[in-house]
Amino acid sequence: MIKNTKVNAAIIIIGNEILSGRTQDTNTSTLSTWLNSIGVNVGEVRIIPDVENIIVDTLNLLRKKYNYIFTSGGIGPTHDDITAKSVSTAFGINYEIHKEAFKILEAYYKPGEFNEGRQKMVWMPENANLILNPTSGAPGFNVENVYCLPGVPSILKSMLGGLKNNIVGGEPILSLTISLRTVESEIASSLTNVQNDNQDVEIGSYPFFQAGKLGVSIVIRSQDQKKIDKSKKEILNFVNKKKITLVER
Amino acid sequence: MIKNTKVNAAIIIIGNEILSGRTQDTNTSTLSTWLNSIGVNVGEVRIIPDVENIIVDTLNLLRKKYNYIFTSGGIGPTHDDITAKSVSTAFGINYEIHKEAFKILEAYYKPGEFNEGRQKMVWMPENANLILNPTSGAPGFNVENVYCLPGVPSILKSMLGGLKNNIVGGEPILSLTISLRTVESEIASSLTNVQNDNQDVEIGSYPFFQAGKLGVSIVIRSQDQKKIDKSKKEILNFVNKKKITLVER
Repeated sequence: MIKNTKVNAAIIIIGNEILSGRTQDTNTSTLSTWLNSIGVNVGEVRIIPDVENIIVDTLNLLRKKYNYIFTSGGIGPTHDDITAKSVSTAFGINYEIHKEAFKILEAYYKPGEFNEGRQKMVWMPENANLILNPTSGAPGFNVENVYCLPGVPSILKSMLGGLKNNIVGGEPILSLTISLRTVESEIASSLTNVQNDNQDVEIGSYPFFQAGKLGVSIVIRSQDQKKIDKSKKEILNFVNKKKITLVER
Repeated sequence: MIKNTKVNAAIIIIGNEILSGRTQDTNTSTLSTWLNSIGVNVGEVRIIPDVENIIVDTLNLLRKKYNYIFTSGGIGPTHDDITAKSVSTAFGINYEIHKEAFKILEAYYKPGEFNEGRQKMVWMPENANLILNPTSGAPGFNVENVYCLPGVPSILKSMLGGLKNNIVGGEPILSLTISLRTVESEIASSLTNVQNDNQDVEIGSYPFFQAGKLGVSIVIRSQDQKKIDKSKKEILNFVNKKKITLVER
C-alpha cells in the first residue's frame, strides 16, 4: 500500500442487478480512476443489495472510517430506489421534498410531465447539497462526507466534473506501467527484491494475454515521481539482464 | 430481496489494481451469474487491497456469515500474491508446500522450468482441497467454505466447471426480464403496486439506452416460476393499459 496517502474513500455500489450478475458494474472503475487522479486513495468497495438496513449499516460503518464515501445506484423514481431514504436514516435526519431539486426538475420537464414518479426523485435528506446532473436533470446529493450518484454509468460519469471542487484530495497518485513479454514466475524473485528495496512505492504485477501472447504488466504507484523512477530503474536493470523484451500496451 | 433463498455467498475481490481503477473487474459478474444459476444468492461483494490483515479480517467476518465465500486474485507467483498465506492465517493453520499441487505443477512444466517463482504457487493452507485449473496448471484451493480462485478472468472462468459438484445450492433463482420503450417515472407507481402485491418476488427496474432510445428493463426474480408468472401478468396488464411498447433486448 502507498503509505503517505492521507485522503481516502470507500465506494458503495447499491444494486441487486450487480449481485445477480445481470449487470456488469463499471462505476467502480470510473470512480476509482477519477478519485486516484485527484489524489484520493480508494480503500475498499462494497457491493450491497437494495435493502435499507444493509445500506444504513454500511454507510454508518464506512463514513466514519473514510474521508469520503461515494454511492452509486438507487436514486431513481422506482420502488427499488431507496438510497436517499437510507442516507436520511443513517444520518438521523428528515427525508423530505428538497425545494431546490423540485425547482430544477419542474423547470427541466415539460408542463404536466413532472408527475408523481418523477417527484419521488426530489425526496432527499434534509438540507442535502445537490450534485447537478447535466445529462438527465435529476440531481444527486451530498450529506457531510457522503456523495450519492446514480447507477447509470453515462449519467454518473457526466456528474463527476461538477464534483471536483468539492473533493479535496492529497497529492495525485502517480503510476507507471512497464509491460514485458514474459511470465510472472520468471521475474517474481527479482521483483520481490525491488519491492523490498522500495517499501513506500506499491509494485503490482498483472499477467495479460495480448494477440495470443502472454505478458506481464508491472505497475509502480506512488505520490513521488522520484521514487517511481528509482523503482523503474531497478526493474529495467533486471529486465535487461534477463534479456526480456519490453512491449507496448 | 428473495426471501426463501437459503444458500448464500459473498465474493471477495482481492487486488489493488481494481481499487486503482486500472483494471475493470469482471469476476464479480462471472461468479454472480454462475452462483445464481446454481441456486446460490450473492449477498455482498467486497473489493479489498492486497494487505494481509485486511484479507484476514474480511475472511473471518464473512465466512461465518455466508454459506460460501469466493475469493478472486492474489494466488500467483509474485510478491503481491498473498491470498494463500492470508487464508492460512485466517483459519490458524500452517502455510506450507502442498504435495499434490507440487506434483501437478512439476508434471505441468518442462524439466527445469518449475523454478522458485512457480514453486511459490504450491504454498497453500495445510490440507487445502485443490481446485483444478485446466488453463494454466496452477490450482486454486478450498478450505472449509472458502474457495480461492485466480484473478485472471479467463482462468477463473475455466475453473468453475470443476467446482460445480462442490457447491450445494438451493433451488435455482429464476428471472424474467420485460423490456419496455418507456421511462421509469411513467411506470414507477404501477410497478410499486405490483411489488407490494408480490412481496416474495424481487422486482427491479433498470433504465437503458439502446440505439439512441431510452427504455426500462423490469427484472422479476424468484425461485418459484408461478410467482414470476403472476407478477409478469400484472406488469403486462398495466403496460397494455398505458399502451407502452414492449422491446427486445
